[in-house]
Amino acid sequence: MTIQNTFEILKNHFGERWSTSQTDLENHGHSESYFPTHAPDAVVYPLTTADVVYIVNVCHQSKIPIIGYGVGTSLEGHTSAIHGGICVDFSKMNKVLEIDPSNMSATLEPGVTREQLNHELRHSGLFFSVDPGANATLGGMASTRASGTTSVRYGTMRENIQSLEVVIANGECINTNTKAKKSAAGYDLTSLFIGAEGTLGLITKITVKLHPIPELITSGVVAFDTINDAVQAVQDITYMGIPIARLEFLDEKSVEAFNAYSNLSLPVKPHLLFELHSSEISANEDIKSFKSACSEYGGIDFKWSTKEEERKELWALRHKGYYAILASAPGKRAIVTDICVPQTKLGEAVSETQKDIVKSGIAGPILGHVGDGNFHAILLVDPENHQELKAAKSVAAKMAKLAIRLGGTCTGEHGIGMGKIDFMADQHGHGWNVMGNIKEALDPYNIMNPGKIIKRN
Amino acid sequence: MTIQNTFEILKNHFGERWSTSQTDLENHGHSESYFPTHAPDAVVYPLTTADVVYIVNVCHQSKIPIIGYGVGTSLEGHTSAIHGGICVDFSKMNKVLEIDPSNMSATLEPGVTREQLNHELRHSGLFFSVDPGANATLGGMASTRASGTTSVRYGTMRENIQSLEVVIANGECINTNTKAKKSAAGYDLTSLFIGAEGTLGLITKITVKLHPIPELITSGVVAFDTINDAVQAVQDITYMGIPIARLEFLDEKSVEAFNAYSNLSLPVKPHLLFELHSSEISANEDIKSFKSACSEYGGIDFKWSTKEEERKELWALRHKGYYAILASAPGKRAIVTDICVPQTKLGEAVSETQKDIVKSGIAGPILGHVGDGNFHAILLVDPENHQELKAAKSVAAKMAKLAIRLGGTCTGEHGIGMGKIDFMADQHGHGWNVMGNIKEALDPYNIMNPGKIIKRN
Repeated sequence: MTIQNTFEILKNHFGERWSTSQTDLENHGHSESYFPTHAPDAVVYPLTTADVVYIVNVCHQSKIPIIGYGVGTSLEGHTSAIHGGICVDFSKMNKVLEIDPSNMSATLEPGVTREQLNHELRHSGLFFSVDPGANATLGGMASTRASGTTSVRYGTMRENIQSLEVVIANGECINTNTKAKKSAAGYDLTSLFIGAEGTLGLITKITVKLHPIPELITSGVVAFDTINDAVQAVQDITYMGIPIARLEFLDEKSVEAFNAYSNLSLPVKPHLLFELHSSEISANEDIKSFKSACSEYGGIDFKWSTKEEERKELWALRHKGYYAILASAPGKRAIVTDICVPQTKLGEAVSETQKDIVKSGIAGPILGHVGDGNFHAILLVDPENHQELKAAKSVAAKMAKLAIRLGGTCTGEHGIGMGKIDFMADQHGHGWNVMGNIKEALDPYNIMNPGKIIKRN
Repeated sequence: MTIQNTFEILKNHFGERWSTSQTDLENHGHSESYFPTHAPDAVVYPLTTADVVYIVNVCHQSKIPIIGYGVGTSLEGHTSAIHGGICVDFSKMNKVLEIDPSNMSATLEPGVTREQLNHELRHSGLFFSVDPGANATLGGMASTRASGTTSVRYGTMRENIQSLEVVIANGECINTNTKAKKSAAGYDLTSLFIGAEGTLGLITKITVKLHPIPELITSGVVAFDTINDAVQAVQDITYMGIPIARLEFLDEKSVEAFNAYSNLSLPVKPHLLFELHSSEISANEDIKSFKSACSEYGGIDFKWSTKEEERKELWALRHKGYYAILASAPGKRAIVTDICVPQTKLGEAVSETQKDIVKSGIAGPILGHVGDGNFHAILLVDPENHQELKAAKSVAAKMAKLAIRLGGTCTGEHGIGMGKIDFMADQHGHGWNVMGNIKEALDPYNIMNPGKIIKRN
């Protein structure tokens, strides 16, 4: 069958939900990143799993690439159609199908966004914890093994997905797990598809785990003289079992940007933003222990609140961080890095990175999820200035290599896509071949998001 | 190369650590279960990863099966050499290599047992949480995705392994992960090998996650009129976010056996055994909330303690449960079932199972990890009595099918081995083929523990 024939078949089947308009193609050819646009040849909007099975069967027969698409907030070129093919846009599969408080779970279509999900949960006493910066879709978050500020307590997507429905390359539809809390029945297919970036199949349904809303939430901020002091405090806090739910780090440059953007006057020092999830009775004691651990390492300018309005303001600060940093350098765009190292190496990783950034001549405030050893430098560049772009890419590459050298990973939460693929051999050695073997076994024609995670001719 | 040649090569290489003595072979041909002995053709005792690589390379060339062996406490025939081959006994690879409190982890060889590990951790303020009944090796526990009484709070082996070193079928040695707390760098190989029962490779090193010892531990017991009451209470407790660390269920028959074995006088009613891990300040409030949730559903005869001696006694009761039940029927052996269902289906699953057991005419007390929806019937049979054996196997099969029908799994924590393999198609559908594809990709000659999890000719 020729590609033309295949397209004709799909067009006839999907009618208005099949698009080859130039705008549509270009909009789906990139995501929030500095990568050039690689537009797909067509965009299709499935409504059901059966639609997805239909698409995959047709593409499988014609060996046409298939790229899943949520809302395009990924950062490493995950949605670029580098070998052309069909973009499967899940925006019309956006229903929460079931909220099941008794089993502490919800089942939903992949196009549901995290904010939408929490909105629908608002009367249940439960919440979904994973909160990457963007209001991403759950399908995208599952596919990149996303995490966020609460992962230090509640885990990443790996820990918060109960089960997936996936259409694999041969058109079969599988359920990776049941609703039982644990299982020892064979290989862990759920984990295999989480973080596979659509290279092994298309996720068509997700059952996520939910958590009870804590009785009392305390949010706050504390300043330190050096990064190492902050990191040391974090280690003690972890060790003491204080119920930390969020633990974010800002370097001096980020604090400057925050101050300017939100008209604040935080001291220009490294800061921790934190949140504790306590029972009412223990909240006072928890904050006391937290404070005392910070004081040990010179923590000052300690402010906190249990009032919802004030807490929200504080976290808005963090969630607006990216925009505050962008606003600090008008006209620039950002290359966002994402390394994660063992807790004990975090101080070293941050200070080496700061030195590299200074040397490079570009601006690059640092913030991150310090409780997980994960941080981002927001490298600010003029995309037209090749010198700057080159310098930023060089810093990003150095960071990835530094993370691997310190026994960590080139990406904590953004994924590999095409942006990090050149670090896979270095980080995984023969393990990358094992991934390649799995890819080949499940997708012999390499039609599932080709060119991401795995390199194949 | 003939098998004789291969054996000669290995014998020369391993000297005294190569055995074909009849006793050794028979001892390694079964584990703690009712399966008949399937002895391997030889047993080898590696000391290092390099030894394991050597063994695998030689066996790969000659297409000889390799079966990993810890201390033989698995329950589904995992270590049976049903196609002959070489048993790799890890008892001499039993060193804790590193305790790393700052990264809350420990790295160890696969022959380390869980009690040994916690003994070595005794001065660290940290503990390793997963506690199956047996004093199993960590290699075995990783391979069966084991769990235990604390999994309701701290998770199973899936949540408590940071990274694995694995020798795969082609002799390559890979590390599945780094020590960074999270990573989005490609497929989750760690999860793939956890629960793979040695069918994809041999685990040669494990980095586990550790937890801080809680400030205050409260253990106790409470009786209910019916199973459903207990299950309802458990649901409320989970929902309220009470810091439950253990939550075990005993039915009337188990309580009878416990009373007789330990000279107790618990009321002959369904019971919950529980443990809360609290901060000192919140402990009183936690136990109050727990008690009130139980009272809502008629919980009575509530006893608890925070004293270490009394707590240990209580959990000894639970950990001796299997032997108490065996002692209740002298001369009998046990077939231990292991199903796990969604929390909301637990009451139904237990009462249907009890009815089936009564109908079968054999004795079968029930106990389990009610916080996870996982329970075991200990079916007591005279192994020489074919009628009884048949009845027990029929109850076990009905339970597995019941679990699948209720949206659960045929095994919560014991694994598939050869004992549950006939339920895989029913539970996973095409997902089982996907597992088969992965197996074939990573082990094309089917030398890694053949006949377990996957069926292949």
